This record gives sequence, structure tokens and C-alpha cells, in this order.
Amino acid sequence: MAYIELNNALPGITGLLENRPDTGAPIRELTQILLRGESTLTELERELIATLVSYGNECRFCTSAHAATVVALGGSEEMLDKVFHDLENAPVSGKMRALLTIAAKVQRLGKEVKGSDIDRAKAAGATDTEIHDTVLIAALFCLYNRYVDGLGTYRPEDSAYYQRLAARLVTIGYGRPKDGIRNGEESFK
Amino acid sequence: MAYIELNNALPGITGLLENRPDTGAPIRELTQILLRGESTLTELERELIATLVSYGNECRFCTSAHAATVVALGGSEEMLDKVFHDLENAPVSGKMRALLTIAAKVQRLGKEVKGSDIDRAKAAGATDTEIHDTVLIAALFCLYNRYVDGLGTYRPEDSAYYQRLAARLVTIGYGRPKDGIRNGEESFK
Repeated sequence: MAYIELNNALPGITGLLENRPDTGAPIRELTQILLRGESTLTELERELIATLVSYGNECRFCTSAHAATVVALGGSEEMLDKVFHDLENAPVSGKMRALLTIAAKVQRLGKEVKGSDIDRAKAAGATDTEIHDTVLIAALFCLYNRYVDGLGTYRPEDSAYYQRLAARLVTIGYGRPKDGIRNGEESFK
Repeated sequence: MAYIELNNALPGITGLLENRPDTGAPIRELTQILLRGESTLTELERELIATLVSYGNECRFCTSAHAATVVALGGSEEMLDKVFHDLENAPVSGKMRALLTIAAKVQRLGKEVKGSDIDRAKAAGATDTEIHDTVLIAALFCLYNRYVDGLGTYRPEDSAYYQRLAARLVTIGYGRPKDGIRNGEESFK
């Protein structure tokens, strides 16, 4: 279980957000705006950024959760594998390739992003807002990944758990779930 | 100037938060809760966590801003230098030494934090809430540092700028500043 005592038995980030609703609320709100708000990037594209960053940060809970969400939104395991290991040949648009390259640099260190990375994204058709959102989504998942792993939260091994979580993230988004879901089958002792 | 066009000429994070008030609001709210909300950690102690993480992430804007805030709250340059380079001998409490050690690990990667780091903090008197807040403050500044540097924001060289910013962070906190301040002397062309 987690390094600190939580008021619930939920795994990963879900237990942390419920444990501290005061800090959980703005984190959920920021995520909902960036990943589900109006955007010229699709939800799949934005989840892909979140997944790549979580993978780079070696956060297994977040990687599993957002990989499942990518798949639920129409992506595939094969596409994710390419994005993780061979981005230049991954089956994504030139714009997304450039944005994912920026996201991977943000994951390592903000100052790794160079003007040439931005030029490439703009040349591939990325807008300033898309570049902004890519950087902030990548930065946000650097927060999430560290929050989840830094407190040693519990990570279910069962892939069905992540499929259920992904289904919720696709249909409901990042708002606070209802009590029935929160204290129901997603709880682990 | 920044890699993307902003709607203002403010430097560092201040320009980004004003450029996108929708995402800026929850980021400000989370920061205000963590760094200025009720806590058994002092504001100086919490700013010290923010400064150490920003230093580790090589974010010059955030390091300058929060180092100036530490000094404005009663810390010193000498104390900061020790915290950055020789934490085990820095003039902080045993509890803060253990919490700063956790923060430095979170800055590198969440999973670097081990049970033994948590045990040390608890043995030094840290509560679960203090450990939680340390991890989340460190994670939040990993977001900030990447947001600021990943978008190549402008960084003033003048130390007086950071002293003015620190004075605002000490007296007003992390809420949105009034128009007079926002469009006044803090703007850089």
C-alpha cells in the first residue's frame, strides 16, 4: 500500500485524489480542461502525450491507465509500442510526431526543448495553442507520475482494472466520480 | 521571448498564467493551497522545497523567484547554497532534511523515493500530511519548471525583479494579481 495512510483503498492516483479533495479538485479541473476541453488536438492525441510522458517517467500505473485510454479511443498497442520506441516511424501525423518529440523532451527537462523543435512543429502545422497544450500536458503528467510513485501507491496488476478506468476516462472524463463508483469495485484492500 | 506568442509581455510563469487564465486558475489554486494554506510546515519550509526542486530541474526563473521568496521569509543565500549542495549539513531541522531528501528524489523520478526515505522522515517527526505535501509540492514544481522552460519563456536578469515578485508572493500569495500589477512594472518588452 501507499507510503502514507489514505482514507480509502483506491489504487494509484485515484486514491490520492480522493484522500485530499482540496488539492484533488484543481488537479482534476486542470486535467479536464487540457485532455477533454475544446481543442484542435483529438482526445486520442492528447492521451498519447500523457501516455508517452508517463512511460518516460517509468510510472507503471499512469502508463497502464492512459495506454488503455488510448486503446479505448481507437489507438492500438502496436501504435503505442512504436510511439514509445520508434517515434520517427510511428503511425501518427507529422504534426503529432513533432509534438510528441517536444513532449518527450519536456518529460526529461524543460530546457531540452529548443527553438528548432518548435520550428519543426510549426512547419508541420502545429498552432501555438497546440504547442502550449502539448507542453502543459507533458508537464502535468510529470506532476502526476511523481505524485503516484513518490507516495508509493498501490498498482493493480489486472489489465481489466485499467480497461474499466479507461472506460470511465473516455465517457465521464476527469471529474470526481460518483460515490457508487468511488467506493465500489475499484477499491482494493 | 517565449516560443509561442503570448497576450502579454510578462516573464517566466507569470506570462503563461496570464496568457491562459483557464489553465492558470487551477494551477494558481493548487499552489495557494499547498504553499500558503494551513500547514504544520512553515511557508519558508514549503518555499524551500519549491526552490530545491526548481534548482534540480535547472529552471533559472523559478529558482530565482523562489530563492528570493525564501530570503524574503527569513532564509539566507548561505542556507540555500547548503540545501542545494550539501543538504546533510544544511542549517535545517532533521525533519526538513528528510523531507528535502524526499523532494530531491521526487524531482529526479517518483520511484526513486523508497520506504526507507519515508521511514527516516517519520522517525524525524514528519506526519503523513507533511510527507504528502512535500511530494505534491515537489511534483507541482516539476510541472512549473517544465512549463516555464519548455515554452522558452523570458527570464529577467535583474535580481530586483525577483525581489519584487517575492514580495508579492509573501504578502499576496499565488492568487491572480490585480491589473495594476499585471500590466505595470513587471512587464518586459
